[in-house]
Amino acid sequence: MVIESLREKNADFFVQHSGNANFFYATKFKSNASMFYILGADGTELLVLPEMELGRALRESRVKEIASFEKLGYEEKIRELGNSRKAIAEILIERLKEGRAKKVLIPTDFPAFLAFELQRSFEVEVIENPFLKLRAVKRAEEVFKIRQNCIKLLKAFEKFLNKLKFKKNFTCEFARKLIERELYSLGLIAEDTICSTGKLSADPHEIGRGRVEDHLLVDIFPKNPSTGYFADFTRTILIRNNTEIEEMLRAVIEAQKNAISMLRDGVNGRDVHNTVKDCLKSYGYETKSGEGFIHSTGHGIGLEVHEEPRLGDVDVELKSGMVVTIEPGLYYKKIGGVRIEDVVLIRENDCEVLTPYESFLGVM
Amino acid sequence: MVIESLREKNADFFVQHSGNANFFYATKFKSNASMFYILGADGTELLVLPEMELGRALRESRVKEIASFEKLGYEEKIRELGNSRKAIAEILIERLKEGRAKKVLIPTDFPAFLAFELQRSFEVEVIENPFLKLRAVKRAEEVFKIRQNCIKLLKAFEKFLNKLKFKKNFTCEFARKLIERELYSLGLIAEDTICSTGKLSADPHEIGRGRVEDHLLVDIFPKNPSTGYFADFTRTILIRNNTEIEEMLRAVIEAQKNAISMLRDGVNGRDVHNTVKDCLKSYGYETKSGEGFIHSTGHGIGLEVHEEPRLGDVDVELKSGMVVTIEPGLYYKKIGGVRIEDVVLIRENDCEVLTPYESFLGVM
Repeated sequence: MVIESLREKNADFFVQHSGNANFFYATKFKSNASMFYILGADGTELLVLPEMELGRALRESRVKEIASFEKLGYEEKIRELGNSRKAIAEILIERLKEGRAKKVLIPTDFPAFLAFELQRSFEVEVIENPFLKLRAVKRAEEVFKIRQNCIKLLKAFEKFLNKLKFKKNFTCEFARKLIERELYSLGLIAEDTICSTGKLSADPHEIGRGRVEDHLLVDIFPKNPSTGYFADFTRTILIRNNTEIEEMLRAVIEAQKNAISMLRDGVNGRDVHNTVKDCLKSYGYETKSGEGFIHSTGHGIGLEVHEEPRLGDVDVELKSGMVVTIEPGLYYKKIGGVRIEDVVLIRENDCEVLTPYESFLGVM
Repeated sequence: MVIESLREKNADFFVQHSGNANFFYATKFKSNASMFYILGADGTELLVLPEMELGRALRESRVKEIASFEKLGYEEKIRELGNSRKAIAEILIERLKEGRAKKVLIPTDFPAFLAFELQRSFEVEVIENPFLKLRAVKRAEEVFKIRQNCIKLLKAFEKFLNKLKFKKNFTCEFARKLIERELYSLGLIAEDTICSTGKLSADPHEIGRGRVEDHLLVDIFPKNPSTGYFADFTRTILIRNNTEIEEMLRAVIEAQKNAISMLRDGVNGRDVHNTVKDCLKSYGYETKSGEGFIHSTGHGIGLEVHEEPRLGDVDVELKSGMVVTIEPGLYYKKIGGVRIEDVVLIRENDCEVLTPYESFLGVM
């Protein structure tokens, strides 16, 4: 896929910088250091990194051709140029010149300083990162990792619910700590978990604060630090009777059901999104002025919580092996917000819900 | 500091993208969304973000002038340009044009796609991010947050040591899980904690695996998720008698003591680094071919584990209020590695060690 981009653009190299999921996906090597993965149109791969990471990279990296900045003259260059950024740029440029580069591709989020430096020596084109598309369709071992996370997440959620049962007076902060601890005890790390309530929950990303009112919106998106993969799951729990909230929740559950029933290889994400929109509208829920169904229907999940594909007002063909969330919600400032979210694996003729759990969690 | 950069460069605006500590430092607003903080030479500030984040940003952000992409015509632009990145770039360009921008400053890690787009309409200059320098000197409330982390970290480490006591047969994986759980129970999140042993520990960033041999190198750098600030601390524990390791450790402890004793406002980081190098050399430890004292002496700590200033082969004036690590180490492939590390607050006439803890942890 990445080599295809090079050929299509008639370019010689693609350069991927470190500090993001794409670099890890390409190399399977993790470090805080500044590093580069360079792929040539002929398929040659090179990893460039600090000498201090070399031994570990030789053991851990998928890429076996590795050079250190120091071996490539870092010390002299820093003396000459007086700046480590310039020294690194110069080393990169020299390597690309050795490969007779004329045209170099970089991803959209490539650091501007380096992009400008490369531009002095090569034709540089910014492209949509080809790894994003590759990452969207999961390999079997990736599905396995996400599935494991989902199983653990549901176990933690079940324990969380049991501990909350019959409690009516508790705070969002208490609920957040409780679910995060349950997740942690199963090996998942969660931060900024959304446990929101009342009118504030009309902001989809409000993490929640204060005493829980009639409902509790719990959005959990933990990472498994041992694999780097995420899970993502939301339930809205009715704590006390509230007809407005309950009706919104039932509409959202119906919209999700409709969306999930149409998922399969080849479906357009836009159609899924429209199905959700139409269903919510059919229940009388309007979307305007920042209220109603104000976000997209879902997103891919993997090494990032949000990745390709996006299921919204955009054409995108869903493919077998994609793992996406389906998360309709409704948000009204005078009432609050509700949302439910499941992780789903797209298959040839249907889909598999990786987070099978009761959608309607009634008054406890 | 940032405005000074604008005046100095005779530029009109500085644009900071989201997804990094600099953005959070500038705005105090946290979100996974694509957002921009724009500072004008006249001191005007503007935060641009998705409509969905607006309510929360109005409550949480330090910056009070906020506009949403949607209000600025996102929907029409995406229909016209067919691409969300281009739509966002166009919105940014229009805003800057409204502010009569001619010259725009961006930080080194600004996304290349946007940098190139801005370049079509303005003179664009990449600068060393001025927030990095600002962040290097901590405000009182930042010192407080780091100090709290250090106190918690030491409590967790003490519990960890007590649980390890009299154990001779355990693995790096066991030790890692143990210390990470102790940290978590005190509200600190740690990932990839280094618990390494044997010859593999000659790689400073090897996280460690397998049965613990004669020594255990524990490097802990947890984040407090409620504040976003880090701590960083390393001890090398002698599990069994090993003269080579013990002698290396004693040299490293002496080197750290010498370095810490010279810390105060105005000292050059290079001199501190040279003090460490000289001390280790005086003990007969050579540095060459990727062995010996192969990294720098320390780094600032705050919203990132590694930030400004760097204490290494580079001139940098240490200032009162900086919080840095002092972490000499020695690494030999045939023996292994040792390191100790403390967090230190630079003061007018001396420094305060924020992680006061016994340096030599002998055979248990």
